[in-house]
Amino acid sequence: CQTYPPIAEGTYQPQAAGLGMPSSALYPNLEELGEYMGLSLDSDEVQRNMALVPMADNQVAVSSGMGISGMVCPVTGSDVGIKRAEIRPGLREIILCKDQDRKVGLRLRAIDNGVFIQLVQANSPAALGGLRFGDQVLQINGQNCAGWSLDKAHKALKVAAETRIELIVRDRPFQRTVTMHKDSSGHVGFIFKSGNITSLVKDGSAARNGLLTAHYICEINGQNVIGLKDAQIKDILTTSPTAMTITIMPKFIYEHMVKRMSSGLLQSAMDHSVPEV
Amino acid sequence: CQTYPPIAEGTYQPQAAGLGMPSSALYPNLEELGEYMGLSLDSDEVQRNMALVPMADNQVAVSSGMGISGMVCPVTGSDVGIKRAEIRPGLREIILCKDQDRKVGLRLRAIDNGVFIQLVQANSPAALGGLRFGDQVLQINGQNCAGWSLDKAHKALKVAAETRIELIVRDRPFQRTVTMHKDSSGHVGFIFKSGNITSLVKDGSAARNGLLTAHYICEINGQNVIGLKDAQIKDILTTSPTAMTITIMPKFIYEHMVKRMSSGLLQSAMDHSVPEV
Repeated sequence: CQTYPPIAEGTYQPQAAGLGMPSSALYPNLEELGEYMGLSLDSDEVQRNMALVPMADNQVAVSSGMGISGMVCPVTGSDVGIKRAEIRPGLREIILCKDQDRKVGLRLRAIDNGVFIQLVQANSPAALGGLRFGDQVLQINGQNCAGWSLDKAHKALKVAAETRIELIVRDRPFQRTVTMHKDSSGHVGFIFKSGNITSLVKDGSAARNGLLTAHYICEINGQNVIGLKDAQIKDILTTSPTAMTITIMPKFIYEHMVKRMSSGLLQSAMDHSVPEV
Repeated sequence: CQTYPPIAEGTYQPQAAGLGMPSSALYPNLEELGEYMGLSLDSDEVQRNMALVPMADNQVAVSSGMGISGMVCPVTGSDVGIKRAEIRPGLREIILCKDQDRKVGLRLRAIDNGVFIQLVQANSPAALGGLRFGDQVLQINGQNCAGWSLDKAHKALKVAAETRIELIVRDRPFQRTVTMHKDSSGHVGFIFKSGNITSLVKDGSAARNGLLTAHYICEINGQNVIGLKDAQIKDILTTSPTAMTITIMPKFIYEHMVKRMSSGLLQSAMDHSVPEV
Protein backbone atom coordinates (compact mmCIF):
# COMPACT_ATOMS: atom_id res chain seq x y z
CA CYS A 1 0.00 0.00 0.00
CA GLN A 2 1.19 3.50 -0.67
CA THR A 3 1.54 5.85 2.22
CA TYR A 4 2.51 9.46 2.57
CA PRO A 5 5.29 9.86 3.58
CA PRO A 6 6.83 6.43 2.75
CA ILE A 7 7.06 4.21 5.82
CA ALA A 8 10.47 3.62 7.32
CA GLU A 9 11.41 0.18 8.54
CA GLY A 10 10.40 -0.53 12.08
CA THR A 11 7.64 2.04 12.24
CA TYR A 12 4.72 0.84 14.33
CA GLN A 13 1.92 0.12 11.91
CA PRO A 14 -1.12 -0.94 13.85
CA GLN A 15 -3.23 -1.07 10.78
CA ALA A 16 -0.82 -2.57 8.28
CA ALA A 17 -2.35 -6.03 8.39
CA GLY A 18 -5.01 -6.56 5.81
CA LEU A 19 -5.21 -3.01 4.62
CA GLY A 20 -7.98 -2.78 2.09
CA MET A 21 -8.08 -0.12 -0.56
CA PRO A 22 -11.44 1.56 -0.58
CA SER A 23 -13.00 1.79 -3.99
CA SER A 24 -14.87 5.01 -4.20
CA ALA A 25 -13.13 8.19 -5.21
CA LEU A 26 -15.46 10.70 -3.60
CA TYR A 27 -16.34 10.14 -0.01
CA PRO A 28 -19.05 9.82 0.93
CA ASN A 29 -19.99 8.72 -2.58
CA LEU A 30 -23.56 9.84 -2.76
CA GLU A 31 -24.51 7.49 -5.57
CA GLU A 32 -23.27 4.53 -3.58
CA LEU A 33 -24.93 5.67 -0.40
CA GLY A 34 -28.20 5.93 -2.23
CA GLU A 35 -30.57 6.18 0.62
CA TYR A 36 -28.46 7.12 3.61
CA MET A 37 -30.23 6.96 6.93
CA GLY A 38 -33.54 7.36 5.15
CA LEU A 39 -32.49 10.46 3.26
CA SER A 40 -32.72 10.42 -0.49
CA LEU A 41 -29.34 11.59 -1.72
CA ASP A 42 -30.07 12.23 -5.35
CA SER A 43 -27.85 15.14 -6.25
CA ASP A 44 -30.60 17.41 -7.57
CA GLU A 45 -32.82 16.72 -4.64
CA VAL A 46 -30.04 17.52 -2.24
CA GLN A 47 -29.38 20.83 -3.92
CA ARG A 48 -33.02 21.74 -3.97
CA ASN A 49 -33.70 20.86 -0.39
CA MET A 50 -30.51 21.48 1.49
CA ALA A 51 -29.70 24.97 0.37
CA LEU A 52 -31.80 26.56 3.08
CA VAL A 53 -31.31 24.08 5.88
CA PRO A 54 -29.56 25.68 8.84
CA MET A 55 -26.15 24.31 9.66
CA ALA A 56 -26.34 21.28 11.90
CA ASP A 57 -23.48 19.28 13.34
CA ASN A 58 -21.00 18.37 10.66
CA GLN A 59 -23.29 19.20 7.78
CA VAL A 60 -22.26 21.75 5.23
CA ALA A 61 -24.47 23.15 2.54
CA VAL A 62 -23.30 25.68 -0.02
CA SER A 63 -26.00 27.16 -2.14
CA SER A 64 -25.66 27.87 -5.82
CA GLY A 65 -24.44 31.16 -7.13
CA MET A 66 -22.14 32.55 -9.76
CA GLY A 67 -22.01 29.24 -11.56
CA ILE A 68 -20.72 27.50 -8.47
CA SER A 69 -22.83 24.72 -6.98
CA GLY A 70 -22.50 23.01 -3.66
CA MET A 71 -23.33 19.64 -2.27
CA VAL A 72 -23.93 18.29 1.16
CA CYS A 73 -21.62 15.63 2.54
CA PRO A 74 -23.83 14.48 5.36
CA VAL A 75 -22.43 13.03 8.54
CA THR A 76 -25.25 12.10 10.78
CA GLY A 77 -25.38 14.34 13.81
CA SER A 78 -26.93 11.62 15.90
CA ASP A 79 -23.77 9.53 15.98
CA VAL A 80 -22.64 9.33 19.59
CA GLY A 81 -18.93 9.45 18.80
CA ILE A 82 -19.36 12.63 16.84
CA LYS A 83 -21.40 14.20 19.62
CA ARG A 84 -18.82 13.30 22.24
CA ALA A 85 -16.05 14.72 20.12
CA GLU A 86 -17.81 17.91 19.15
CA ILE A 87 -15.82 21.07 19.69
CA ARG A 88 -18.44 23.69 20.43
CA PRO A 89 -18.03 27.33 19.54
CA GLY A 90 -18.58 30.08 22.07
CA LEU A 91 -17.98 29.98 25.77
CA ARG A 92 -19.30 27.77 28.52
CA GLU A 93 -19.40 28.04 32.26
CA ILE A 94 -18.33 25.20 34.53
CA ILE A 95 -18.84 25.25 38.27
CA LEU A 96 -16.60 22.98 40.28
CA CYS A 97 -16.36 21.90 43.90
CA LYS A 98 -13.05 20.88 45.37
CA ASP A 99 -12.56 17.33 46.53
CA GLN A 100 -11.59 16.22 50.05
CA ASP A 101 -7.95 17.02 49.32
CA ARG A 102 -9.12 20.51 48.33
CA LYS A 103 -8.14 19.93 44.73
CA VAL A 104 -10.08 20.20 41.51
CA GLY A 105 -7.82 17.90 39.52
CA LEU A 106 -6.46 20.31 36.95
CA ARG A 107 -3.01 21.19 35.74
CA LEU A 108 -2.78 24.27 33.60
CA ARG A 109 -0.40 25.70 31.03
CA ALA A 110 0.16 29.30 29.90
CA ILE A 111 0.44 29.66 26.12
CA ASP A 112 0.29 32.85 24.05
CA ASN A 113 -1.10 34.82 27.01
CA GLY A 114 -3.91 32.36 27.48
CA VAL A 115 -4.39 29.60 30.06
CA PHE A 116 -4.97 26.04 28.90
CA ILE A 117 -5.77 22.74 30.55
CA GLN A 118 -2.81 20.39 30.41
CA LEU A 119 -4.13 17.60 32.61
CA VAL A 120 -7.56 16.54 33.81
CA GLN A 121 -7.15 14.02 36.57
CA ALA A 122 -9.29 10.93 36.43
CA ASN A 123 -12.24 10.92 38.80
CA SER A 124 -11.66 14.51 39.80
CA PRO A 125 -14.15 17.38 40.01
CA ALA A 126 -12.65 18.69 36.76
CA ALA A 127 -13.32 15.38 35.04
CA LEU A 128 -16.88 15.33 36.36
CA GLY A 129 -17.32 18.85 35.10
CA GLY A 130 -16.50 17.78 31.57
CA LEU A 131 -13.24 19.68 31.29
CA ARG A 132 -10.78 18.38 28.72
CA PHE A 133 -7.14 18.55 27.76
CA GLY A 134 -6.65 21.63 25.62
CA ASP A 135 -9.66 23.59 26.89
CA GLN A 136 -8.87 27.28 27.30
CA VAL A 137 -9.74 28.74 30.69
CA LEU A 138 -10.83 32.35 30.17
CA GLN A 139 -11.93 33.20 33.69
CA ILE A 140 -11.56 31.83 37.18
CA ASN A 141 -14.14 33.18 39.61
CA GLY A 142 -14.76 36.30 37.60
CA GLN A 143 -11.12 37.13 36.94
CA ASN A 144 -9.85 37.05 33.37
CA CYS A 145 -6.89 34.72 32.95
CA ALA A 146 -5.42 36.57 29.97
CA GLY A 147 -1.72 37.14 30.51
CA TRP A 148 -1.52 35.10 33.69
CA SER A 149 1.52 33.10 34.54
CA LEU A 150 1.07 29.47 35.39
CA ASP A 151 1.69 30.19 39.06
CA LYS A 152 -0.96 32.86 39.14
CA ALA A 153 -3.53 30.56 37.56
CA HIS A 154 -2.78 27.67 39.90
CA LYS A 155 -2.94 30.06 42.83
CA ALA A 156 -6.36 31.31 41.79
CA LEU A 157 -7.59 27.75 41.89
CA LYS A 158 -5.92 27.16 45.23
CA VAL A 159 -7.43 30.14 47.03
CA ALA A 160 -10.87 29.66 45.53
CA ALA A 161 -13.78 28.67 47.76
CA GLU A 162 -14.08 24.93 48.21
CA THR A 163 -17.70 24.70 47.27
CA ARG A 164 -17.82 26.88 44.21
CA ILE A 165 -15.22 27.63 41.56
CA GLU A 166 -16.62 29.26 38.46
CA LEU A 167 -14.69 28.76 35.28
CA ILE A 168 -15.44 30.25 31.88
CA VAL A 169 -14.03 27.95 29.25
CA ARG A 170 -13.61 27.82 25.48
CA ASP A 171 -13.66 24.34 23.95
CA ARG A 172 -10.26 23.08 22.84
CA PRO A 173 -9.30 25.99 20.56
CA PHE A 174 -6.20 24.32 19.15
CA GLN A 175 -7.93 21.09 18.24
CA ARG A 176 -10.21 20.01 15.46
CA THR A 177 -12.19 16.90 14.64
CA VAL A 178 -11.96 14.70 11.56
CA THR A 179 -14.67 12.11 10.98
CA MET A 180 -13.75 9.02 9.04
CA HIS A 181 -15.36 5.70 8.21
CA LYS A 182 -13.76 2.30 8.50
CA ASP A 183 -13.50 0.31 5.30
CA SER A 184 -14.51 -3.31 4.97
CA SER A 185 -11.28 -4.37 6.67
CA GLY A 186 -11.97 -2.10 9.60
CA HIS A 187 -9.33 0.48 8.75
CA VAL A 188 -9.52 4.23 8.26
CA GLY A 189 -6.02 4.44 6.83
CA PHE A 190 -3.48 6.20 8.96
CA ILE A 191 -0.40 5.14 10.85
CA PHE A 192 0.70 6.59 14.15
CA LYS A 193 3.55 6.29 16.60
CA SER A 194 3.48 7.46 20.21
CA GLY A 195 0.15 9.09 19.49
CA ASN A 196 1.51 11.13 16.59
CA ILE A 197 0.08 10.57 13.09
CA THR A 198 2.98 9.74 10.78
CA SER A 199 1.46 8.44 7.55
CA LEU A 200 -1.73 8.39 5.54
CA VAL A 201 -2.79 5.45 3.42
CA LYS A 202 -3.42 6.51 -0.16
CA ASP A 203 -7.13 6.95 -0.82
CA GLY A 204 -8.08 5.75 2.63
CA SER A 205 -10.84 7.44 4.60
CA ALA A 206 -8.29 9.43 6.56
CA ALA A 207 -6.72 10.77 3.36
CA ARG A 208 -10.08 11.53 1.80
CA ASN A 209 -11.17 13.46 4.86
CA GLY A 210 -8.00 15.48 5.10
CA LEU A 211 -6.37 14.01 8.18
CA LEU A 212 -2.84 15.39 8.46
CA THR A 213 0.49 14.00 9.58
CA ALA A 214 2.52 15.69 12.33
CA HIS A 215 -0.61 15.88 14.42
CA TYR A 216 -1.25 14.20 17.75
CA ILE A 217 -4.37 12.20 18.42
CA CYS A 218 -6.04 13.82 21.44
CA GLU A 219 -9.36 11.99 21.42
CA ILE A 220 -11.08 9.12 19.68
CA ASN A 221 -14.85 9.55 19.58
CA GLY A 222 -14.45 12.14 22.32
CA GLN A 223 -12.47 9.87 24.64
CA ASN A 224 -9.12 11.34 25.67
CA VAL A 225 -6.20 9.10 24.64
CA ILE A 226 -3.32 11.38 25.52
CA GLY A 227 -0.58 9.52 27.32
CA LEU A 228 -1.95 6.08 26.52
CA LYS A 229 0.38 3.53 25.01
CA ASP A 230 0.03 2.92 21.28
CA ALA A 231 -1.38 -0.55 21.99
CA GLN A 232 -4.11 0.98 24.12
CA ILE A 233 -4.91 3.52 21.41
CA LYS A 234 -5.04 0.71 18.89
CA ASP A 235 -7.61 -1.11 21.02
CA ILE A 236 -9.81 1.93 21.14
CA LEU A 237 -9.51 2.34 17.36
CA THR A 238 -10.35 -1.31 16.84
CA THR A 239 -13.45 -1.22 18.98
CA SER A 240 -14.68 2.09 17.59
CA PRO A 241 -17.87 2.10 15.55
CA THR A 242 -17.50 2.40 11.80
CA ALA A 243 -17.96 6.16 11.97
CA MET A 244 -14.93 7.37 13.89
CA THR A 245 -14.23 10.95 14.93
CA ILE A 246 -10.66 11.77 15.87
CA THR A 247 -9.65 14.98 17.58
CA ILE A 248 -6.20 16.17 16.56
CA MET A 249 -3.76 18.91 17.52
CA PRO A 250 -0.75 20.11 15.52
CA LYS A 251 2.47 18.57 16.83
CA PHE A 252 4.10 21.94 17.47
CA ILE A 253 1.26 23.10 19.66
CA TYR A 254 0.87 19.72 21.37
CA GLU A 255 4.51 19.75 22.43
CA HIS A 256 4.01 23.16 24.03
CA MET A 257 0.85 22.01 25.72
CA VAL A 258 2.44 18.98 27.45
CA LYS A 259 5.74 20.61 28.35
CA ARG A 260 7.05 19.72 31.78
CA MET A 261 4.46 17.03 32.19
CA SER A 262 5.98 13.62 32.54
CA SER A 263 4.65 11.01 30.14
CA GLY A 264 4.12 8.72 33.12
CA LEU A 265 1.82 11.24 34.71
CA LEU A 266 -0.03 11.75 31.43
CA GLN A 267 -0.63 8.03 31.21
CA SER A 268 -1.56 7.34 34.82
CA ALA A 269 -3.32 10.46 35.99
CA MET A 270 -5.18 11.74 32.94
CA ASP A 271 -8.89 11.21 32.72
CA HIS A 272 -9.34 8.74 29.86
CA SER A 273 -12.99 7.98 30.49
CA VAL A 274 -15.64 7.96 27.82
CA PRO A 275 -17.48 11.26 28.12
CA GLU A 276 -21.22 11.57 28.50
CA VAL A 277 -23.14 13.55 25.94
CA CYS B 1 -3.49 50.55 30.70
CA GLN B 2 -2.05 47.17 31.41
CA THR B 3 -1.27 44.85 28.58
CA TYR B 4 0.05 41.33 28.31
CA PRO B 5 2.90 41.21 27.53
CA PRO B 6 4.05 44.76 28.47
CA ILE B 7 4.30 47.01 25.42
CA ALA B 8 7.75 47.92 24.21
CA GLU B 9 8.46 51.44 23.05
CA GLY B 10 7.66 52.04 19.44
CA THR B 11 5.19 49.23 19.07
CA TYR B 12 2.37 50.11 16.73
CA GLN B 13 -0.68 50.60 18.90
CA PRO B 14 -3.63 51.33 16.73
CA GLN B 15 -6.00 51.33 19.62
CA ALA B 16 -3.88 53.01 22.26
CA ALA B 17 -5.60 56.39 21.99
CA GLY B 18 -8.46 56.74 24.41
CA LEU B 19 -8.45 53.16 25.60
CA GLY B 20 -11.33 52.74 27.93
CA MET B 21 -11.37 50.11 30.60
CA PRO B 22 -14.54 48.11 30.42
CA SER B 23 -16.24 47.84 33.75
CA SER B 24 -17.85 44.47 33.86
CA ALA B 25 -15.92 41.44 35.00
CA LEU B 26 -17.92 38.78 33.22
CA TYR B 27 -18.59 39.31 29.57
CA PRO B 28 -21.22 39.36 28.43
CA ASN B 29 -22.48 40.49 31.81
CA LEU B 30 -25.96 39.19 31.72
CA GLU B 31 -27.26 41.51 34.40
CA GLU B 32 -26.01 44.51 32.50
CA LEU B 33 -27.34 43.31 29.21
CA GLY B 34 -30.73 42.83 30.80
CA GLU B 35 -32.83 42.52 27.75
CA TYR B 36 -30.43 41.73 24.92
CA MET B 37 -31.95 41.81 21.47
CA GLY B 38 -35.35 41.22 23.01
CA LEU B 39 -34.28 38.18 24.99
CA SER B 40 -34.79 38.19 28.70
CA LEU B 41 -31.45 37.21 30.15
CA ASP B 42 -32.40 36.53 33.72
CA SER B 43 -30.09 33.75 34.80
CA ASP B 44 -32.77 31.36 35.95
CA GLU B 45 -34.81 31.90 32.86
CA VAL B 46 -31.82 31.24 30.65
CA GLN B 47 -31.08 27.99 32.41
CA ARG B 48 -34.66 26.84 32.24
CA ASN B 49 -35.13 27.65 28.61
CA MET B 50 -31.77 27.19 27.00
CA ALA B 51 -30.84 23.75 28.26
CA LEU B 52 -32.65 21.98 25.44
CA VAL B 53 -32.07 24.43 22.62
CA PRO B 54 -29.98 22.88 19.86
CA MET B 55 -26.60 24.40 19.27
CA ALA B 56 -26.76 27.40 17.00
CA ASP B 57 -23.90 29.52 15.81
CA ASN B 58 -21.71 30.56 18.68
CA GLN B 59 -24.19 29.57 21.34
CA VAL B 60 -23.21 27.05 23.92
CA ALA B 61 -25.53 25.53 26.46
CA VAL B 62 -24.36 23.08 29.09
CA SER B 63 -27.13 21.42 31.03
CA SER B 64 -26.98 20.75 34.73
CA GLY B 65 -25.63 17.55 36.10
CA MET B 66 -23.34 16.25 38.77
CA GLY B 67 -23.56 19.55 40.58
CA ILE B 68 -22.24 21.41 37.56
CA SER B 69 -24.45 24.05 35.96
CA GLY B 70 -24.04 25.82 32.69
CA MET B 71 -24.99 29.13 31.23
CA VAL B 72 -25.42 30.45 27.78
CA CYS B 73 -23.24 33.30 26.56
CA PRO B 74 -25.36 34.24 23.60
CA VAL B 75 -23.90 35.75 20.49
CA THR B 76 -26.65 36.42 18.06
CA GLY B 77 -26.41 34.13 15.07
CA SER B 78 -27.97 36.67 12.81
CA ASP B 79 -24.99 39.00 12.94
CA VAL B 80 -23.63 39.28 9.43
CA GLY B 81 -20.00 39.49 10.50
CA ILE B 82 -20.28 36.26 12.42
CA LYS B 83 -21.94 34.56 9.48
CA ARG B 84 -19.27 35.70 7.07
CA ALA B 85 -16.55 34.52 9.41
CA GLU B 86 -18.08 31.18 10.23
CA ILE B 87 -15.78 28.22 9.88
CA ARG B 88 -18.08 25.37 8.97
CA PRO B 89 -17.42 21.76 9.90
CA GLY B 90 -17.54 18.99 7.35
CA LEU B 91 -16.65 19.15 3.70
CA ARG B 92 -17.97 21.23 0.85
CA GLU B 93 -17.76 20.97 -2.90
CA ILE B 94 -16.79 23.91 -5.08
CA ILE B 95 -17.02 23.83 -8.84
CA LEU B 96 -14.84 26.32 -10.69
CA CYS B 97 -14.45 27.42 -14.28
CA LYS B 98 -11.15 28.77 -15.50
CA ASP B 99 -10.89 32.36 -16.64
CA GLN B 100 -9.77 33.54 -20.07
CA ASP B 101 -6.13 33.08 -19.05
CA ARG B 102 -7.06 29.51 -18.18
CA LYS B 103 -6.42 30.12 -14.50
CA VAL B 104 -8.55 29.66 -11.44
CA GLY B 105 -6.62 32.14 -9.28
CA LEU B 106 -5.25 29.86 -6.62
CA ARG B 107 -1.85 29.29 -5.15
CA LEU B 108 -1.50 26.23 -2.99
CA ARG B 109 0.82 25.02 -0.27
CA ALA B 110 1.60 21.49 0.92
CA ILE B 111 1.63 21.14 4.71
CA ASP B 112 1.62 17.93 6.77
CA ASN B 113 0.65 15.85 3.72
CA GLY B 114 -2.34 18.06 3.04
CA VAL B 115 -2.88 20.77 0.43
CA PHE B 116 -3.87 24.25 1.53
CA ILE B 117 -4.83 27.48 -0.20
CA GLN B 118 -2.12 30.10 0.16
CA LEU B 119 -3.53 32.75 -2.13
CA VAL B 120 -6.94 33.50 -3.59
CA GLN B 121 -6.56 36.08 -6.32
CA ALA B 122 -8.97 38.94 -6.34
CA ASN B 123 -11.73 38.70 -8.94
CA SER B 124 -10.75 35.17 -9.87
CA PRO B 125 -12.93 32.09 -10.26
CA ALA B 126 -11.58 30.91 -6.91
CA ALA B 127 -12.67 34.15 -5.25
CA LEU B 128 -16.13 33.88 -6.82
CA GLY B 129 -16.32 30.32 -5.58
CA GLY B 130 -15.88 31.46 -2.00
CA LEU B 131 -12.49 29.86 -1.49
CA ARG B 132 -10.36 31.37 1.25
CA PHE B 133 -6.80 31.52 2.48
CA GLY B 134 -6.17 28.50 4.66
CA ASP B 135 -8.89 26.27 3.17
CA GLN B 136 -7.73 22.67 2.83
CA VAL B 137 -8.22 21.13 -0.61
CA LEU B 138 -9.02 17.46 -0.15
CA GLN B 139 -9.78 16.52 -3.75
CA ILE B 140 -9.26 17.94 -7.19
CA ASN B 141 -11.52 16.36 -9.81
CA GLY B 142 -12.00 13.19 -7.84
CA GLN B 143 -8.36 12.69 -6.92
CA ASN B 144 -7.36 12.87 -3.25
CA CYS B 145 -4.67 15.45 -2.62
CA ALA B 146 -3.26 13.73 0.46
CA GLY B 147 0.50 13.49 0.21
CA TRP B 148 0.75 15.57 -2.96
CA SER B 149 3.64 17.85 -3.59
CA LEU B 150 2.92 21.43 -4.49
CA ASP B 151 3.87 20.78 -8.09
CA LYS B 152 1.50 17.87 -8.35
CA ALA B 153 -1.37 19.93 -6.97
CA HIS B 154 -0.73 22.88 -9.26
CA LYS B 155 -0.45 20.50 -12.21
CA ALA B 156 -3.80 18.94 -11.41
CA LEU B 157 -5.34 22.38 -11.60
CA LYS B 158 -3.50 23.13 -14.81
CA VAL B 159 -4.59 20.03 -16.71
CA ALA B 160 -8.16 20.19 -15.46
CA ALA B 161 -10.97 20.91 -17.90
CA GLU B 162 -11.57 24.62 -18.40
CA THR B 163 -15.26 24.54 -17.73
CA ARG B 164 -15.40 22.34 -14.70
CA ILE B 165 -12.96 21.80 -11.86
CA GLU B 166 -14.44 20.03 -8.86
CA LEU B 167 -12.79 20.69 -5.53
CA ILE B 168 -13.65 19.13 -2.20
CA VAL B 169 -12.66 21.54 0.52
CA ARG B 170 -12.53 21.70 4.30
CA ASP B 171 -13.01 25.15 5.83
CA ARG B 172 -9.83 26.72 7.16
CA PRO B 173 -8.79 23.90 9.52
CA PHE B 174 -5.97 25.83 11.15
CA GLN B 175 -8.06 28.89 11.91
CA ARG B 176 -10.63 29.75 14.51
CA THR B 177 -12.93 32.67 15.19
CA VAL B 178 -13.14 34.87 18.25
CA THR B 179 -16.11 37.19 18.62
CA MET B 180 -15.62 40.36 20.62
CA HIS B 181 -17.57 43.52 21.31
CA LYS B 182 -16.26 47.04 21.14
CA ASP B 183 -16.42 49.06 24.34
CA SER B 184 -17.78 52.58 24.59
CA SER B 185 -14.52 53.90 23.12
CA GLY B 186 -14.80 51.59 20.16
CA HIS B 187 -12.01 49.25 21.22
CA VAL B 188 -11.90 45.51 21.70
CA GLY B 189 -8.51 45.59 23.39
CA PHE B 190 -5.67 44.09 21.45
CA ILE B 191 -2.57 45.41 19.79
CA PHE B 192 -1.10 44.09 16.60
CA LYS B 193 1.87 44.65 14.37
CA SER B 194 2.18 43.48 10.76
CA GLY B 195 -1.01 41.57 11.22
CA ASN B 196 0.29 39.64 14.23
CA ILE B 197 -1.45 40.05 17.61
CA THR B 198 1.19 41.14 20.13
CA SER B 199 -0.67 42.30 23.25
CA LEU B 200 -4.00 42.04 25.00
CA VAL B 201 -5.47 44.87 27.04
CA LYS B 202 -6.28 43.74 30.57
CA ASP B 203 -9.97 42.99 30.94
CA GLY B 204 -10.76 44.09 27.43
CA SER B 205 -13.20 42.17 25.26
CA ALA B 206 -10.34 40.41 23.50
CA ALA B 207 -8.89 39.21 26.81
CA ARG B 208 -12.28 38.15 28.12
CA ASN B 209 -12.95 36.15 24.99
CA GLY B 210 -9.63 34.40 24.99
CA LEU B 211 -7.91 36.03 22.03
CA LEU B 212 -4.25 34.98 22.02
CA THR B 213 -1.00 36.67 21.15
CA ALA B 214 1.40 35.19 18.57
CA HIS B 215 -1.54 34.72 16.24
CA TYR B 216 -2.07 36.35 12.87
CA ILE B 217 -5.32 38.06 11.97
CA CYS B 218 -6.61 36.31 8.85
CA GLU B 219 -10.05 37.84 8.61
CA ILE B 220 -12.16 40.53 10.22
CA ASN B 221 -15.86 39.77 10.01
CA GLY B 222 -15.03 37.24 7.33
CA GLN B 223 -13.10 39.68 5.17
CA ASN B 224 -9.56 38.53 4.38
CA VAL B 225 -6.95 41.01 5.62
CA ILE B 226 -3.81 39.01 4.98
CA GLY B 227 -1.12 41.11 3.37
CA LEU B 228 -2.86 44.41 4.05
CA LYS B 229 -0.89 47.16 5.74
CA ASP B 230 -1.58 47.71 9.43
CA ALA B 231 -3.23 51.05 8.61
CA GLN B 232 -5.66 49.29 6.29
CA ILE B 233 -6.41 46.68 8.93
CA LYS B 234 -6.99 49.45 11.43
CA ASP B 235 -9.54 51.04 9.10
CA ILE B 236 -11.45 47.81 8.84
CA LEU B 237 -11.39 47.41 12.62
CA THR B 238 -12.60 50.97 13.08
CA THR B 239 -15.51 50.61 10.69
CA SER B 240 -16.52 47.21 12.01
CA PRO B 241 -19.85 46.89 13.79
CA THR B 242 -19.73 46.61 17.57
CA ALA B 243 -19.82 42.84 17.38
CA MET B 244 -16.58 41.89 15.69
CA THR B 245 -15.47 38.40 14.71
CA ILE B 246 -11.79 37.92 14.05
CA THR B 247 -10.37 34.81 12.43
CA ILE B 248 -6.91 33.93 13.70
CA MET B 249 -4.17 31.43 12.92
CA PRO B 250 -1.21 30.50 15.15
CA LYS B 251 1.94 32.31 14.07
CA PHE B 252 3.92 29.12 13.59
CA ILE B 253 1.35 27.72 11.17
CA TYR B 254 0.80 31.05 9.44
CA GLU B 255 4.48 31.35 8.65
CA HIS B 256 4.42 27.92 7.02
CA MET B 257 1.29 28.81 5.10
CA VAL B 258 2.74 31.95 3.49
CA LYS B 259 6.22 30.62 2.84
CA ARG B 260 7.71 31.65 -0.48
CA MET B 261 4.92 34.10 -1.07
CA SER B 262 6.15 37.64 -1.31
CA SER B 263 4.42 40.12 0.97
CA GLY B 264 3.91 42.35 -2.03
CA LEU B 265 1.97 39.64 -3.79
CA LEU B 266 -0.07 38.96 -0.66
CA GLN B 267 -1.02 42.61 -0.50
CA SER B 268 -1.72 43.22 -4.18
CA ALA B 269 -3.11 39.95 -5.46
CA MET B 270 -5.09 38.50 -2.55
CA ASP B 271 -8.83 38.70 -2.61
CA HIS B 272 -9.72 41.09 0.19
CA SER B 273 -13.34 41.53 -0.71
CA VAL B 274 -16.17 41.30 1.76
CA PRO B 275 -17.69 37.86 1.35
CA GLU B 276 -21.34 37.24 0.71
CA VAL B 277 -23.26 35.10 3.12
